[in-house]
Amino acid sequence: MIVRMAELEIDRGSIDAFNALLSEEIEASVRLEPGVLFLFAIAVKENSHLIRVIEGYADQAAYEAHLTMPHFLKYKVGTADMVKSLRLIETDPISLKAKPQISN
Amino acid sequence: MIVRMAELEIDRGSIDAFNALLSEEIEASVRLEPGVLFLFAIAVKENSHLIRVIEGYADQAAYEAHLTMPHFLKYKVGTADMVKSLRLIETDPISLKAKPQISN
Repeated sequence: MIVRMAELEIDRGSIDAFNALLSEEIEASVRLEPGVLFLFAIAVKENSHLIRVIEGYADQAAYEAHLTMPHFLKYKVGTADMVKSLRLIETDPISLKAKPQISN
Repeated sequence: MIVRMAELEIDRGSIDAFNALLSEEIEASVRLEPGVLFLFAIAVKENSHLIRVIEGYADQAAYEAHLTMPHFLKYKVGTADMVKSLRLIETDPISLKAKPQISN
């Protein structure tokens, strides 16, 4: 399994539009792509322009396939002007446990 | 739902011991506590002493109950001397989607 974290800073005037595009992309990715295991997007409280996305993929091929999907490209192009900075953090999973149904 | 993120820095000589205690705590919490929805622990690649834990609870009561559980207290006491710093980040969920089975 591959787990990464993205730390994004969003233009403060674009937060609602960004979150709508991101949520649409997350829903489609987990529903349509067998290798996308989870996508969790959270905003720092009282700093809702600071967003973290924790991303789980079955393997490297699943991640690379994700980057070519129409729903990902729609998000990426649609939000390009809203993202002030993006930091990608590669990680090693230590332990990931969840109830069978956790989506919000 | 309450989602928080903990950013920890662990003593480099204690990483294996810390990860074992953390993994045991995560497994017990998600299995035994109805209100602990997920616990994801990841280490920054090539900096395995830098750990992030993303935590999902059903509500504030579930979070407060978690802090009193024997498995949590065992972890907290057992790792106290291993943790060099701990930063808790309160967050607002934007979108959390996952396959039904994602545990590693």
